[in-house]
Amino acid sequence: MHGIGHFTLAALASLTLASANAESTGLPAETNVRGADTPRIHPDGAITFTLNAPAAPAASTVLVAGGDGLGKGPFAMAKSSGSLWSVTTPPAAPGFHYYWFIVDGVQVNDPSSETYFGYNHETSGVEVPDATGKFYALSDVPHGEVRSKWYFSKTTGDWRRALVYTPPGYDSDPKQRYPVLLLQHGAGENETGWTRQGRANFILDNLIAARKAVPMLVVMDCGYATRHGTRPVPTGVDAGLESRQIAFSAFKDVVLQDLLPMIDATYRTIPDRDYRAMAGLSMGGMQTLFITLHDLNRFAYIGSFSGPIAPNFRANRLEPQPAFDTRTAYEGAFADPNRFNERVKVLWLGVGTEEPELFRNDIHGAANALKASGVHVVYVESPGTAHEWQTWRRALNDFAPRLFH
Amino acid sequence: MHGIGHFTLAALASLTLASANAESTGLPAETNVRGADTPRIHPDGAITFTLNAPAAPAASTVLVAGGDGLGKGPFAMAKSSGSLWSVTTPPAAPGFHYYWFIVDGVQVNDPSSETYFGYNHETSGVEVPDATGKFYALSDVPHGEVRSKWYFSKTTGDWRRALVYTPPGYDSDPKQRYPVLLLQHGAGENETGWTRQGRANFILDNLIAARKAVPMLVVMDCGYATRHGTRPVPTGVDAGLESRQIAFSAFKDVVLQDLLPMIDATYRTIPDRDYRAMAGLSMGGMQTLFITLHDLNRFAYIGSFSGPIAPNFRANRLEPQPAFDTRTAYEGAFADPNRFNERVKVLWLGVGTEEPELFRNDIHGAANALKASGVHVVYVESPGTAHEWQTWRRALNDFAPRLFH
Repeated sequence: MHGIGHFTLAALASLTLASANAESTGLPAETNVRGADTPRIHPDGAITFTLNAPAAPAASTVLVAGGDGLGKGPFAMAKSSGSLWSVTTPPAAPGFHYYWFIVDGVQVNDPSSETYFGYNHETSGVEVPDATGKFYALSDVPHGEVRSKWYFSKTTGDWRRALVYTPPGYDSDPKQRYPVLLLQHGAGENETGWTRQGRANFILDNLIAARKAVPMLVVMDCGYATRHGTRPVPTGVDAGLESRQIAFSAFKDVVLQDLLPMIDATYRTIPDRDYRAMAGLSMGGMQTLFITLHDLNRFAYIGSFSGPIAPNFRANRLEPQPAFDTRTAYEGAFADPNRFNERVKVLWLGVGTEEPELFRNDIHGAANALKASGVHVVYVESPGTAHEWQTWRRALNDFAPRLFH
Repeated sequence: MHGIGHFTLAALASLTLASANAESTGLPAETNVRGADTPRIHPDGAITFTLNAPAAPAASTVLVAGGDGLGKGPFAMAKSSGSLWSVTTPPAAPGFHYYWFIVDGVQVNDPSSETYFGYNHETSGVEVPDATGKFYALSDVPHGEVRSKWYFSKTTGDWRRALVYTPPGYDSDPKQRYPVLLLQHGAGENETGWTRQGRANFILDNLIAARKAVPMLVVMDCGYATRHGTRPVPTGVDAGLESRQIAFSAFKDVVLQDLLPMIDATYRTIPDRDYRAMAGLSMGGMQTLFITLHDLNRFAYIGSFSGPIAPNFRANRLEPQPAFDTRTAYEGAFADPNRFNERVKVLWLGVGTEEPELFRNDIHGAANALKASGVHVVYVESPGTAHEWQTWRRALNDFAPRLFH
């Protein structure tokens, strides 16, 4: 209990979590902080949100809004009693959704929710159970660790932190060596996304326990990098051509010159391209294709989960794209399909069926063009999910079992 | 870039971090999210906060408030231009401070800040540099890892997560074994507090590199526990006698029956009381005294950092306490000073000089009474700091070098 001064005690008193008046049906979301009753998830996926605002009696409009899977919000909340605002939304899609309140135009996190890094800031999140979601549950199986590893990058001239999943048993046999999957988050997120929103560690724990995937290390780094002595540039999927090339190029150097050498020196890896995979979601998928296709000597397995296809790093992803040309795309990486198929054991492309056309058409179109040219491609659609974490959890669950055989 | 739907793009546009109009003096706080210019820390410790609220043109009062070290706030912010509110506070104390905005009575996190778990929810935080703070800097020394370790607790009937600091070199010599420090957070915080707010891993890295502390494991668990099949009870320092006993007793069983056996089975510890320490801050200090003094066969080193003295678990910490009786306190743990001194290698009590009297008087009084009775006590005051993280960083930096000799 910090700050036992007068003001702080008053602030604490105002922070009482809304519970007494919350609807009693449904169950608290597992993304809630300890002891918080709302958000509550109803059996059909409807969500009851509440916000207690006793210090703001004059608030006139309170909305709840969030990511795609939450439905066609924002949803207006009503003052149900005293200072308690609440709403029950229509059924939301299963999975993890970012969300936030908007109080008279001001965006507010829900004090009842843990926060998750997205949209370049810390945001509330709500987990809606999925009947088919056992693959990412915290189950009664052996669990690996997720390790915070600090390392110095010569590329950026600064310390960075990578998260490293080590599989169950990593410490018990000091002679066993492991393959490595480098797994990247999307724009606006950071290295914590894949374990916190994506539950990558639990997905791997479950796959390894079921002997569906081989034990592997999963390395999750922060996908932003500014070359030492230069100024930061925008990095989003709709960032300009030049900035994207600058930012992606700096990140590529971090990965190839700083991160992977550190990983190979620190952990018991198999330091060989045949035992190295890279995958990422959205911007992380773009980065994966950018880094792996540029030099096929570094990775034998490639996965782009809802990753925009940017074969020539065209300037604006929000405009319609020309047809994907397998002969010239990505510096000619696919120009010789037989050679590509010899080098790359798995090329995985996928997208959610509810994603915007600009994602689906490009990704599906590229997969079709590659197949037609003779390139082996795994193309997987996630049914009923949008540009959101449920799509990417499923993508990882499909991709990881295909690795390192 | 999640949710490329219409609403989300609009939301993203409104999330532009305040930068163009931020004051150009000072430096961005290291607690800021990547690329955020504010809060900015000035050389004298003054802090410039800004909040851009373009969607809330009608907002009439915006305040910034926070923990003790931030000064005598809340501070009113002024609309400096367009929708940008800002204020520069008087010089703040060095170290980490929780803070938040209050917009027309609604508490709002700063989108420019990372969040930190305190007050039972995710809160903004600002780091003010300290000329004497090199001991917790991310320095060019070998770094240990901080590992997320999931384990099942029979006491609570649920999975829990502990964070485990492993020192540099832990993986390189699979025969070396290490002592263990169990290190607990305060009320309203969780297992992430000691590394994120407290920088315990960097403190240990620096101490070990300077050979001031021996390499050790540091185990940080979540200090709340609800016995399987029972309902949660309040756990704060001012919680009632009965609930504190219930909650602390459940946590004690987690520590002694679930956590430590798991740690000894999983990591290369020296499973002996002489190589086991426990310390904690505030509520975590209370828990440390409760757990360690109850049974001196488990821990040889004990540290209570700003931990209220509750020799008989009296009901209300906010009332004046009777004199500390060394003969009866803590079930008579100190009744035989010679025996105690034989068993306990270090008993460390400390407090910040700016902490409320109810902390200082009790802790200082207990230390004096123990010394007078012949019990060996290390009593250390942190000059100029309150009930806040700077006090506890210093406490750890003083305590850890005394361990395991």
